[in-house]
Amino acid sequence: MKRFLYAATAALMVCASASHADEGMWTFHGFPFAKANAALKTSLDQAWLDRVRSATVRLSNCTASFVSGEGLILTNHHCVEACLAEQSSKEKSYVEDGFLAKTREEEKKCQTQVADVLVGMEEITAKITAATAGKTEAAANEVRKSTLTQLEGECEKATNQKCQSVTLYEGGQYWLYKYKRYTDVRLVFAPEASIAAFGGDPDNFQFPRWCLDMGMLRAYEDGKPATPAAFLKINFAGPAAGEPVFVSGHPGATDRGLTLAQLKQQRNLDLPQWLLRASEIRGRLIQFSASSPQNERITADLLNGLENGIKVRRKMLDALHEDTLLARKAAEQATLEKNIKKNAALKKSTGNPWHDIDVALAAERGIFQPLNYIENGAGFQGRLVNYARTLVRGTVEREKPNGERFREFTDGALKRVEQNLGAAVPVYPELEELRLGASLERMREWLGPDHPLVRKLLSTESPAALAKRLVTTTKLADPAVRLELWKGGSAAVAASNDPLIVLARTIDPDARAVRKTFEDNVEAPMRSATERIARARFATLGTSVYPDATFTLRLNYGTVQGWNENGTPVEPFTKLSRAFERATGADPFRIPDSWQKVKDKLDMNTPFNLSTNNDIVGGNSGSPLINAKGELVGLLFDGNIHSISGSFWFDTEKNRAIAVHPAIMREALAKVYGADALLKELAK
Amino acid sequence: MKRFLYAATAALMVCASASHADEGMWTFHGFPFAKANAALKTSLDQAWLDRVRSATVRLSNCTASFVSGEGLILTNHHCVEACLAEQSSKEKSYVEDGFLAKTREEEKKCQTQVADVLVGMEEITAKITAATAGKTEAAANEVRKSTLTQLEGECEKATNQKCQSVTLYEGGQYWLYKYKRYTDVRLVFAPEASIAAFGGDPDNFQFPRWCLDMGMLRAYEDGKPATPAAFLKINFAGPAAGEPVFVSGHPGATDRGLTLAQLKQQRNLDLPQWLLRASEIRGRLIQFSASSPQNERITADLLNGLENGIKVRRKMLDALHEDTLLARKAAEQATLEKNIKKNAALKKSTGNPWHDIDVALAAERGIFQPLNYIENGAGFQGRLVNYARTLVRGTVEREKPNGERFREFTDGALKRVEQNLGAAVPVYPELEELRLGASLERMREWLGPDHPLVRKLLSTESPAALAKRLVTTTKLADPAVRLELWKGGSAAVAASNDPLIVLARTIDPDARAVRKTFEDNVEAPMRSATERIARARFATLGTSVYPDATFTLRLNYGTVQGWNENGTPVEPFTKLSRAFERATGADPFRIPDSWQKVKDKLDMNTPFNLSTNNDIVGGNSGSPLINAKGELVGLLFDGNIHSISGSFWFDTEKNRAIAVHPAIMREALAKVYGADALLKELAK
Repeated sequence: MKRFLYAATAALMVCASASHADEGMWTFHGFPFAKANAALKTSLDQAWLDRVRSATVRLSNCTASFVSGEGLILTNHHCVEACLAEQSSKEKSYVEDGFLAKTREEEKKCQTQVADVLVGMEEITAKITAATAGKTEAAANEVRKSTLTQLEGECEKATNQKCQSVTLYEGGQYWLYKYKRYTDVRLVFAPEASIAAFGGDPDNFQFPRWCLDMGMLRAYEDGKPATPAAFLKINFAGPAAGEPVFVSGHPGATDRGLTLAQLKQQRNLDLPQWLLRASEIRGRLIQFSASSPQNERITADLLNGLENGIKVRRKMLDALHEDTLLARKAAEQATLEKNIKKNAALKKSTGNPWHDIDVALAAERGIFQPLNYIENGAGFQGRLVNYARTLVRGTVEREKPNGERFREFTDGALKRVEQNLGAAVPVYPELEELRLGASLERMREWLGPDHPLVRKLLSTESPAALAKRLVTTTKLADPAVRLELWKGGSAAVAASNDPLIVLARTIDPDARAVRKTFEDNVEAPMRSATERIARARFATLGTSVYPDATFTLRLNYGTVQGWNENGTPVEPFTKLSRAFERATGADPFRIPDSWQKVKDKLDMNTPFNLSTNNDIVGGNSGSPLINAKGELVGLLFDGNIHSISGSFWFDTEKNRAIAVHPAIMREALAKVYGADALLKELAK
Repeated sequence: MKRFLYAATAALMVCASASHADEGMWTFHGFPFAKANAALKTSLDQAWLDRVRSATVRLSNCTASFVSGEGLILTNHHCVEACLAEQSSKEKSYVEDGFLAKTREEEKKCQTQVADVLVGMEEITAKITAATAGKTEAAANEVRKSTLTQLEGECEKATNQKCQSVTLYEGGQYWLYKYKRYTDVRLVFAPEASIAAFGGDPDNFQFPRWCLDMGMLRAYEDGKPATPAAFLKINFAGPAAGEPVFVSGHPGATDRGLTLAQLKQQRNLDLPQWLLRASEIRGRLIQFSASSPQNERITADLLNGLENGIKVRRKMLDALHEDTLLARKAAEQATLEKNIKKNAALKKSTGNPWHDIDVALAAERGIFQPLNYIENGAGFQGRLVNYARTLVRGTVEREKPNGERFREFTDGALKRVEQNLGAAVPVYPELEELRLGASLERMREWLGPDHPLVRKLLSTESPAALAKRLVTTTKLADPAVRLELWKGGSAAVAASNDPLIVLARTIDPDARAVRKTFEDNVEAPMRSATERIARARFATLGTSVYPDATFTLRLNYGTVQGWNENGTPVEPFTKLSRAFERATGADPFRIPDSWQKVKDKLDMNTPFNLSTNNDIVGGNSGSPLINAKGELVGLLFDGNIHSISGSFWFDTEKNRAIAVHPAIMREALAKVYGADALLKELAK
């Protein structure tokens, strides 16, 4: 399902603890060939790794892979759902109905998508260390960012590649990752949501499963199908039980290296706050959606993403209530502290980072609500208000020297900003009103009716009335208007009377102020402390551990297998026949008409989904499951319920990844969708 | 605001720890005269206490007091909100508009309300101990309940009073409380919700405040205004800052005596689960409410109650995240264990109740979702389905011998059951569909689509479709239909084809099964363990502590005072003028037209609300604030935000109760509402 999307978070990551069994999200510059080959009796080498890297694609929200020499990309349905929604209207939903381009000409451009292939990796730790040496924490924090911006800029100029800095081991290492970027990505195929996400939210993060969670895109270059350096051939027979399998992909974020205090802050504050807010919005969206088929259509992708986020965080919260997890964290920390004390020099250079983290966390608690509601936008939800805030802030930032800007507006980032501002995606006023009104209302609740910004915005209008007025009178739904303001720069934006621009101008000073407090009093000391912990770990444990996930390319290895659920064995493969038995006729357990029509022709023994013990998290959605020969033998789309605690640790016994079996892809493409041209291309 | 309503919960209570300062919810048979008089320099005596008891009223959801010799009852607006809603329709809301009976004839009967006055208290601990001696835990649990039922029944026959057993100190003591019950309670006065709950949910549990949260009822006997044994004269001047004040009322439930493990279960399971479910429903109700003025009207009281519950539990969760609270609990437990070990006999009779509680809590976790969704009704929300379940179960239970029934269907309880079934309260099908559909959907999510009961109910219909069919085809909205089935007994109910009765019949076996598991594996060992802890506490600490709240009559003492909020002093009185300054014109910060019209005549210096350091919790809503002379000098309606952690401990520094000042009551009754007859009656 849409379950392993990546959504950027502000989570802070530290280096991970010693690895168990098959766990590990290994970088492509640190893959433990010997260990993996010994464990699996395989013979992977650098050439295998390079080919897999060149065939793996990073989308803005997911992983994918090239599956033909003509730029064809395989990923999940839920990874192309936003693109399907962009093409849709109140009357026609490609999310619901699916899509097949019968010819290349019918392939539809995804306006807000890009496809990146990792082509180079360069360590820059020494440069960052040199730049920050001897500085105060706040100054180091600033110069660290400006140096990263500068190195990215130089790299882009020199290579014409997309260069992004990567912080591994929470400052233990800094890297520049270089990508070939495709900005013209088009929609080729997606099945109906009802079969892609069969079982819906109730089945999400469950196994056994029956989801054809696939979608296909095509990368274009200069208006022609791209010719990637490598692609993965699909082996439609799929893997055998117990067979070694590899996942190449972009796990988004894990928190396996967080300290006990950081985990408790997540448990006590971040997660409950997020969950309560999201659950209420879930209720509002469901109720809105139920009021008409049009509303259902325009709400579907938003609601799916939200429900996925709720399920993930709910289980993360459960994991953080396990006393054993917290006790293990405390013990690891105690061991590290003991080891540091043994070495006088290390003791001196490390200081007391845990105390410093406590202080930073207290500072974070002190600004949690304004940071969250004002700067981070929990009080200003919706597409339109986001456009306005981007315009107000982005035009001012763009006019500063590159190194002095917020990192989301550096030269390297501006193209994507402009792509998003200019994308002609549908804006539904009813939905905008709902989201903006609801978030304003909660902002008033949490900041209090007497907070100065709340008084400024809501002293004479209710949240709903203000939202209605803003949404119905703004012109920002028009991409031309947005681009004109963007091109006009800060002067044009300052002169604008658009009510949402006015709102964004009103918010921005408060938002900048609380961000500055966050950066100086939370981010800066936290980064300093976690850098010192990371270095102490390298000094006492070595570097043969993997870093926490950062939505950068990783490889992990495992085997096809089920697990034992409270004494009941769960088999690793499901079959098509059971999907029909389990269908109720009503969403989300409805098998679409296209399948019902050809039911008699389908081979009911076709394998549908499978489970493996690969170590994956959100961001791995759409990752190819690869066998030792380098063939694609599955399409990752989810994990079982135990995989969610993978944010904090890898449970060897129960954490399982879930993939679409290639056999059901072929069965569906051939017999349900008549996608002969695609099958032919895949056979090449 | 509606903030201190009592809603029965399944919380388990144990005796409280040693008291601090002014804390304490003292029973009327254990009030510490000497301590209170010494602390406050007062001279309360038994006669004072008896008079206060006779003037204090328990409503089904709140506290109240007699304020005239003609049965006039003063309580909160939010305590009469359900009665106002019962009188309302889609087109006319008494909740919004308020109500004033100009004559006795216009007073409107509250169909589901009763008013109880405590007239006697008898300890029955020895009888229960004798009945359960030597039994297994499960058998003791059953015989304990049947003995309580039997004693209540004998008492009611002998006295013609309402007799209810009360468990104090979680089995340390058992009592029979005897009440004079008024079943004819009529609505006399309520202001508009916008002034009763000025500031709405954002201001709830906040101070300074400006809420005229008052409502008036009248008790009738034999069709005539009742003449209570005592009433409290209102002193409209109100109390001075620092003046000793007493709250007589019915705090609903506190958990100050819970063990560490029980608190953690609340923190990890009960509270997050409840909050997520409630937040989603909150969103659905808000969205439904926003779709038309009619929908807003019919949703208001439900939404208010829900938002109050969310705020309370959110803060309870925060309190349980305080490491110091948990550490104190752990230390208290360690001290008790140490003291027990010193006494061989006590050690033997106590056993290891903490281990037994751990086992019981694990059993509870194992059945948490089915217990919650099936037996406790989280999966079946709404008035209509509740009627159906009461009919299906109640008719079967009623036909058993009194001592063998579920306690909610004993002879003593049946009158209220029948009163509720026969009440002609409005049923709004749209709202019923929403609530039932939403709860069925969550039941499917949490029990899983493959749970047998879920398959039975939802194998061919979606939750929304099932809810729609049931609600639109049932006849149970008609009280005559309900009463006919009730009178027809189990045979009539078994023969009914009403679709909701069919549903309730389908559910009942599963619901009974999981309840039985709960009773035997959770409730029975838990009660045994907490009884042993209570006895060990009596043995080592004596009985001079107060028991946890149980919605039975308590008195606590304190003084009028503000507090210091992070360095800022909060004054204990607010004034009318500030309410006008703070109004925005839009709900929930709207001052109603009736006040705006006479604004010039109002004395802007009139005190509005006040704060005291009395120890109160939910259930105390509507409690009289009484001075040492026994006059009513305030009307409790809320606590400040720090009062919510009062569930677990009393924070002397910051926990404050909030009351309506009598002066604003008089100002409003005289100048806004022209309630001259009432003022005259109050002056007698």
